[in-house]
Formats: sequence, structure tokens, C-alpha cells
Amino acid sequence: MRIALAQINSVVGDLAGNAERMYDIYNQALGRNVDVLVFPELAICGYPPEDLLHKQYFLADARRVVENLAGRCTKMTIVAGFAEGSRGRCYNSAAVIRDGKISRIYRKALLPNYGIFDEQRYFDRGKLPMVINLHNISTAITICRDIWDSDWLSNFLKNSAKISMVINISASPFHIGKMQQRQSVIRSCATELDCAVCYCNLVGGADELVFDGRSLFADSKGNIVLKAKAFEEDMFIADITKSGSAELHIKAEQPMSPQPRDSIDEVYQALVLGTKDYIQKNNFKKVLLGLSGGIDSSVAAAIAAAAIGPENVIGITMPSKFNSPQTRADAEKLANNLKIEFLTIPIDLVLGQFDKALSDVQEWNNQGIAYENLQARIRGNILMSLSNQLSALVLTSGNKSETAVGYTTLYGDTAGGFAVIKDVYKTMVYKLADHINSIAAKQIIPQTVLSREPSAELRANQKDTDSLACYDLLDEILTGYIEQDKSAEQLIGQHLPSDVVLKVIQMVDRNEYKRRQSPPGVRITPKAFGKDRRLPITNRYSHYTDTKSPQSDL
Amino acid sequence: MRIALAQINSVVGDLAGNAERMYDIYNQALGRNVDVLVFPELAICGYPPEDLLHKQYFLADARRVVENLAGRCTKMTIVAGFAEGSRGRCYNSAAVIRDGKISRIYRKALLPNYGIFDEQRYFDRGKLPMVINLHNISTAITICRDIWDSDWLSNFLKNSAKISMVINISASPFHIGKMQQRQSVIRSCATELDCAVCYCNLVGGADELVFDGRSLFADSKGNIVLKAKAFEEDMFIADITKSGSAELHIKAEQPMSPQPRDSIDEVYQALVLGTKDYIQKNNFKKVLLGLSGGIDSSVAAAIAAAAIGPENVIGITMPSKFNSPQTRADAEKLANNLKIEFLTIPIDLVLGQFDKALSDVQEWNNQGIAYENLQARIRGNILMSLSNQLSALVLTSGNKSETAVGYTTLYGDTAGGFAVIKDVYKTMVYKLADHINSIAAKQIIPQTVLSREPSAELRANQKDTDSLACYDLLDEILTGYIEQDKSAEQLIGQHLPSDVVLKVIQMVDRNEYKRRQSPPGVRITPKAFGKDRRLPITNRYSHYTDTKSPQSDL
Repeated sequence: MRIALAQINSVVGDLAGNAERMYDIYNQALGRNVDVLVFPELAICGYPPEDLLHKQYFLADARRVVENLAGRCTKMTIVAGFAEGSRGRCYNSAAVIRDGKISRIYRKALLPNYGIFDEQRYFDRGKLPMVINLHNISTAITICRDIWDSDWLSNFLKNSAKISMVINISASPFHIGKMQQRQSVIRSCATELDCAVCYCNLVGGADELVFDGRSLFADSKGNIVLKAKAFEEDMFIADITKSGSAELHIKAEQPMSPQPRDSIDEVYQALVLGTKDYIQKNNFKKVLLGLSGGIDSSVAAAIAAAAIGPENVIGITMPSKFNSPQTRADAEKLANNLKIEFLTIPIDLVLGQFDKALSDVQEWNNQGIAYENLQARIRGNILMSLSNQLSALVLTSGNKSETAVGYTTLYGDTAGGFAVIKDVYKTMVYKLADHINSIAAKQIIPQTVLSREPSAELRANQKDTDSLACYDLLDEILTGYIEQDKSAEQLIGQHLPSDVVLKVIQMVDRNEYKRRQSPPGVRITPKAFGKDRRLPITNRYSHYTDTKSPQSDL
Repeated sequence: MRIALAQINSVVGDLAGNAERMYDIYNQALGRNVDVLVFPELAICGYPPEDLLHKQYFLADARRVVENLAGRCTKMTIVAGFAEGSRGRCYNSAAVIRDGKISRIYRKALLPNYGIFDEQRYFDRGKLPMVINLHNISTAITICRDIWDSDWLSNFLKNSAKISMVINISASPFHIGKMQQRQSVIRSCATELDCAVCYCNLVGGADELVFDGRSLFADSKGNIVLKAKAFEEDMFIADITKSGSAELHIKAEQPMSPQPRDSIDEVYQALVLGTKDYIQKNNFKKVLLGLSGGIDSSVAAAIAAAAIGPENVIGITMPSKFNSPQTRADAEKLANNLKIEFLTIPIDLVLGQFDKALSDVQEWNNQGIAYENLQARIRGNILMSLSNQLSALVLTSGNKSETAVGYTTLYGDTAGGFAVIKDVYKTMVYKLADHINSIAAKQIIPQTVLSREPSAELRANQKDTDSLACYDLLDEILTGYIEQDKSAEQLIGQHLPSDVVLKVIQMVDRNEYKRRQSPPGVRITPKAFGKDRRLPITNRYSHYTDTKSPQSDL
């Protein structure tokens, strides 16, 4: 039996477009003598469709589109995910298409409702397993989380015929370490059920999520024998035959696809794809972003150029009297290295005029934080004006470290449609910069940008470390507090300095309101500032001060 | 038996503060010879605590605080909601406190996971009913949604002793029509189970939610015999005695609290409380907002003044050459009527300087939309500068109609911390203005504001209806599309004009990105632009164009 795992890049909501893409792939598969063609979870509507699932007419449209697709694909068995409305209920389903019809429907049984997932908000739980005969191979159809608990799955299938293969269709989003996790899950499933696993995962960006593809085949020993491309559409074909008793032999029709070289390369590819898809799926051709000559905007610009081509990226430097000639020169140098368009719009005259207008208010002070934020907001305003004028999406370049502690200006440097490195800690931004230079095999991001001490340049002689701890320490605290839900006590117990720990935690907690109004950005960690971290703005919880006396000056 | 329903205004996360407030109330109840004191759902931690519930140390703190409170309240039976961590699981629980200890714990069985609720993200489901003897009255303890399906509840309790009373502790947020819904639920519960119902609901604002209190007693015939205050803390006491057989007699210790006079009064009170609590629970004393002389900012200012006192509200008018003398005069008149501070900061010179700076870019056009947005963003920038300088929260005054269709400038008029009338359709804003004048028994909002045709005044002779349909029609389409999930076809089938319907739907869909970056505001409808409406930004779904050929110019 020849089976193809077609990891497609579905666009959320684009039922007709996704179906058309699937039909194209069906035709390619026909030419390669495929018997069984597998598409990802919710391939027809994209993932996550969210509250579109509450519209009955959306479900009716989805059904019609699947039936129409089935009618055009008469020469193959197809497994494809779709959102199934049925008698006022909704299921996350897999259609098994045969002879031009939906012959069977499997409904996902385990519905994740944690992290970025809200599936119990939308779907009813399927209660019946499905084992079908595919060219004499007894195969269980499963959807994503169904295989993540192999004990549960064994039990779920216990009254079915002995299976030789599991097909799993997934929409499993990327984060650092996810592939290892996923492989270990697939290994457990294969060994526990003593069967081969064909795993087909979605690819592409959808708001904050990026799906990495990397569909794969595992044999019944749990060996990952074949892997499709990462962060790209791919149709990966294998021939599956019975060898000896029930065991299946899996043989690729093509060589194994190259995989990301390391964890930083993986993150880089995730950022490029997530950014590209946000821009293009929202129908933008061009982007613009502020270039400060610092590391964050340099890395964001390089990712944007890789995503949609340098000819579609405009870098704008907006210097004030506080910007050093060196950073201004670096911004231009970066733009030249990337071959992107470069504009300069100085802000001093506008700043002066604002200062004059605000001086009518007695309390106005042009030496303080308000004056610093004003500069950032003038820049935000210029970028948005040009965005409106040029129909170009504004990219922001705040990193996760500063987003976490609120070292940002709302409507200033956070102003824009998409935050490229929102989920990348500052320490990793440096690694990305090195990676960008390394894959280009030349100095794209100037050495001076890499070596200069970070500064917001909103007042004279400012350094990030004036307000923040050094980034190594800051990122260690943030990872523990945000991603591992550690308390101040636990962090201090790890010998991190208590004054810094307490100050950082308080800054994270107090700046929820800023994050709430920030643009989305690519999620690359297990817990980003998106759907996977939901905290109230109005929130007086403070563990440490509940148990010990607070230090009022923190 | 004397029972008190104590509808308190808990602050999310403020475990110690909430417990202290409960202890105060316990002492008041002692003085009034209360036997059983009932607090709302999650009274200890506030509702909704969201991902705080993922922190094990938060759950441990909550447990310690409840135990500590129990230890101080030795002379009464208390029922109080708390988040219960137990063996790595979390429950939405009610502690029954007796003799200074937690004597029993009931765990909520029905966990809502729709609309604004994500309870299945956090809580495990309780499986056992709890019936306790309270002064010889057999009483079932239930939490919020547990009573919303009376068939289910009957079945859940079927192996328990016959009950005479249900105590329900709730955190049931307000929306228009909610009280009617709630009363009907309570009536069904009482008649189905043939028992009295003591219903204690939370009060207060928590980000976008506002809880309206209105705790109540119903007799076993389903008659609502007593009702506590709306949108205010209250301890409402009744004596419950057995009359005749098992039926209970309920007698108030005080007169029934006055209730909102009508639906508009209810909305007004919700907005005032929601705004007040957002400001004060986030530790602000003062607010500022732009006054355009239009109806939206006038109503928002009046609500702010009612919420925190006119002495804490600053109105700022920021006229340009496009503002008529009449609107400028109205802004000042309104400020005088409200007795709030009034500042004028003209923007023309700043606008001119921006225009000059942007003229370096060849495509810049100072006649178009970008130039209009620029004006709004200069105003946003001035407000935020003063916010930073004066430590005052900026209130925004966009209504639901314009928020829906994106008739707003991101970082311009949407810039601020809290959006007072975000969930109020424009047609209702007018009703609120009349109501504000009516309760003041004088013209607070000037007649000219009420009668002038709405305009953004961002170019000469602009009218809202240039871009939008008349507000009656617009609001009818929006209500159908957003709140009732009706399709374009259904709306057109109601004899609404198809060109307007299609244009409005497309505007709503395309402006998801702006709403995502908008500040929170008080939810007053069954579906606000908050946690209850979750749609992807990257979303190409279009029902109408899937089925008929699209009109490209819409």
C-alpha cells in the first residue's frame, strides 16, 4: 500500500481555498500512484478556527466543501480533518473518503483544553474508536491528542480488531522541545499498541501559532523511520507492506527530508514561517519596521527579509538627539546588508512641538519617563502613518524579556500588527543574530550591533541594565516564573538574588495591561504571552507579600 | 434559622484582603445574630482568577487563608467559595466552616466552558453531592452552574436525603437580560426540587466582567421573595422557619432593596461599577479622557464622574482646525456641568510638524485616511503623556458599534487603559445620555450634543454616516451578526438591505486586529468583544462569498 502524508498549510476559514489546495495535492498523488492520502486535523478549515465553530452556517459550509472535495477525488482513499456539525453539536472529525463519498467519520475523543487549546469550548467528545481495513492493513484512525495517552488509547481500542497501524492526523503547534516530546509520544504509542504509526501534522502560521509539519512514520518498534520537511508544505510518500507476520515494513519513496540543524535553526525557521504567513495570509505584500541600530530590530528585519523578500521590507530610522551616531550608522548598515529600503525621519522637531503643547499643563516634565515614552510614541505614530499610507504592515521588535517586565512603551515601540520576536528571550535574540550571520556566511547584522551594550536611547547615556538586571539573570528568572510557574521562594532557593527576583516578578505582574494591548507574535516557547497564559489585569495576588512583609520600595 | 447572604466585592488575587473583608462581615453578622453566613463562589480569590490557578503556591496560599479565616470565625456556620488544590488537582469548591474549622468541602460539578467561562481549563469536576443539616433544615450546597440544569440536579441529588433548601453560591456576571434568565433558573430549581433557594452572587468589577449581586431567596413555589441590592455590596438577612410540613417560611430581617428602575438604569449602574472597580482595584485615583464634544465622550465622562467623583476626572479637549466652535464649546460645557477639571491642548502645530516630517516620504498624502488617523494618534499620544505624568488612567470612549466595524484609530482614540462604553451600541449611548440627564434632573449632557449629527471631525464636513449606515440599521445588523451568529443570508432575509449587510459584516471581520489591541471595557451584552468572542485575526472565512459570487468593491 502506498500512503502519502500531505502536510498542508491551511488558511483558517478559507474552506474553498484549502479544499482546492487539497485537490491539487490529490492530483499530484494520483500521478505517484498513491493509495491512501492523509491530510492533517481540521485541514479543511485550518487550525484554530475558534468561534467560527459557533456559526451553524460555517459548519454547513465546511460539510458542503468536504462533500464536494470527496466527489472530485474518486480514485483514492483520503483521510482529512474537518469540523463536523451534527444535530446542533460539533465534532473535531476525520472524514474517510472512498469512491467519491465520505464513507466513514471518526470523531476525536480526547479534547485538549489547556495551554493554547480550548477544544472543550467547541467540540463534543467522540465516543467510538474507528478501525478500518486499508488494503488489508487493520488501521485505527485517531486525531492529535488521542495518541498522547497510550494507556487510554489501548483501552479505547480494546474491543476493536487487533490493529497493525495507527493513522494520526494532527494540528500540533511548535514550541522549543516539542519535536522530542512528540517523537516520544509516537514511540510510546507504537510500542504500547505494537503497530506502525503514520503521523500527519499541519504546517504554517495562524496568528501566534506556527505548525511545524515534520509528519513522520514510525515502525511498531517505535523507530522513527521517515520524517517530512520542517516548516514547509510536503507530501511524504511511503510504501507499507506486511513483512512476516503482522509487522509492517515501511519504505520511503523519497529520501528523508533535511531537518533543522539545531534548536536555534528550528526557532529561526519557526519565526520566518510564522511571520511570512501572518503577513501573507492577511493579504499584506509589504512590511515596515523601525530600525534603531539595536539587536532586536536588526534580527526582526532579517527575519522579515527572509520571510517575504528584502524588496518588500522597509526599514525606518527615526533618530532623536539621544541617538548616537554609531546606532544611526548601524541601522543604515543593516539595511544595506539586508538590501531593504531605508528611510530616515528625524523626530526632534515633532518632539519639540509636542513638548511645547504639553507645557501648558503645569505638571509636565520634559526630563522624566513621560518624555521618554513620548519619543517612542512619536515613532509609533510615524510608523502607523506610513503603514496607513503605504498599506504596509508594521512589524514590532520587542523581545520576550522586555515584554515580560513591561520595558516597552504602549503605543510606542509596541505599535504594530505583528511582533516578530515577542516570544524570544533577549539572550536567545543574540543567538539568532549569530545564526543569521552564520547561514548568510557573512556579517548581515553588524558586529557593533552584537557587541554594543543595549540601550533604549530615550535619554542621555541610558543603558537597559539601568532599569533591568543583566539579561542572563533576567531570562533565568523569567523562564522560572513564567514557564515553570515557580514562586519567588523557589527562585530565591535556587540562589538567584532575592531583590532582583522580587522586583522582576512584580514588574511581570504589573505589566499585564501592556501585554494585553500588544500585537500577536510567533509562539516558540511552551508558554508565550498569548492564549497559553491568561491572567487577569485586575489582580492583586502577591505570593511573597502574603507570606512575608513586603518591601515597599520594590 | 437566621441566614445572611453576603454579596461581597472580592478583588481577584487579594486573598488576604478578601478574607479580611469577610471577617469584618462575620463580625457584623455576629451582631445581628446570624446562624449561617453565605459568601459567593470563589469569594476568597475573586472571580475569575484565570491562570493564577495554575500556580501551586497560589492554591496553597488560598487554602491557608481559608483555614486562617475559619479559625477566627468560631461562632457561626459559614459557606464560602474558594479554589481548592488537592493532590495536584484543582476544584471550584465551597468550604462549610463550623466550630472554627473547614468541616466539609463541596466541589462544583458542572463546570461552564463557554462564553466568558473557561472552567474546564482549570478545575476538575466534583462528583459527589453534598446535603448538610443546617438547624434541622436539610440543605444541598451547590455552586453556580450546578443549579442551571434542574433535571441534572434532581438526578445528582437522587440518592441524598430529601432536601428543603438549596444554597447556591455564584459568580454570575451581568449582561442585559441576565437577571430574568437567572430568576427563571432559580424558579425552576425551586419547583423541580420542591425546596427553597438561597442564592448568593458576587458583586463588583473584574476587568471586563461586572457582577451584579442581587442575591435572593426563593420559596419552594419558585416565588422570589427577597432580593439584595444590585451592583453594591450587601448583607441580606432572612429568618427561615419550617411552616407546616417540610415547607419553609422565609421572612426578611429588612425591607427589600430598591432595584434598578429599568434596563437602561441597570446598564448605567453596571458601567459605573465596572469603571469604578477597574480604576480603584488597579490602584488609580484619577482618570483622564479626551472630550470631543460628542455624545460618546460625554457619556463616558459622566460615568467616570459618577464612578470616582468629578474631582478625580480630567477632561481634555484637543481641537484641530477641523473641530467646529460648537463641539469645542460643548466639551467645555459638559466639563462644567460635571464639575470636572478641563484642559485644552490644541494639536494643529504638532500636526503640522508631523506633516512636515512625513513629507520626506514621497507617497505621503495629507488629505487621506492616514492624515485623519494621525490626528487621532496625536491625541492618543497627548493623553498617554499626561497619563504617565499625572499617574492617571486614560479612559477611552469608543462604543460597540464603531468598535465592531473598526471605525476607530488604533493607538488613537482606542489608546487608554479602560474602554467605558466598549460594549454599548451607539443607539444605547443616546439612551444612556437621556438617563444621565434624567437622574441628575438637569441637562448634564448638553442638548446640542444629543441632537448634533455624529462626526469624527477629522476632515472638513465629515459625518459618521458618510462611512457607516445610520446607527439604527447598523446596530440591528451588528446585534444579529455578533450576538445571534446570524449569517448575511439570514439578515438579508429579515429585509435588511443586502449591500449594507455585506459591507458591515466584512468590516466586522476585517477589524479583529484592532479589537485585539483595544483596552478592556465593561461587558453588558451576552456577547462582548472580550473573552466571550474569540475569533482568529488571520481568518479568510466568508460565508456569503463562498456561496455566491463576491462583489469586489465591498
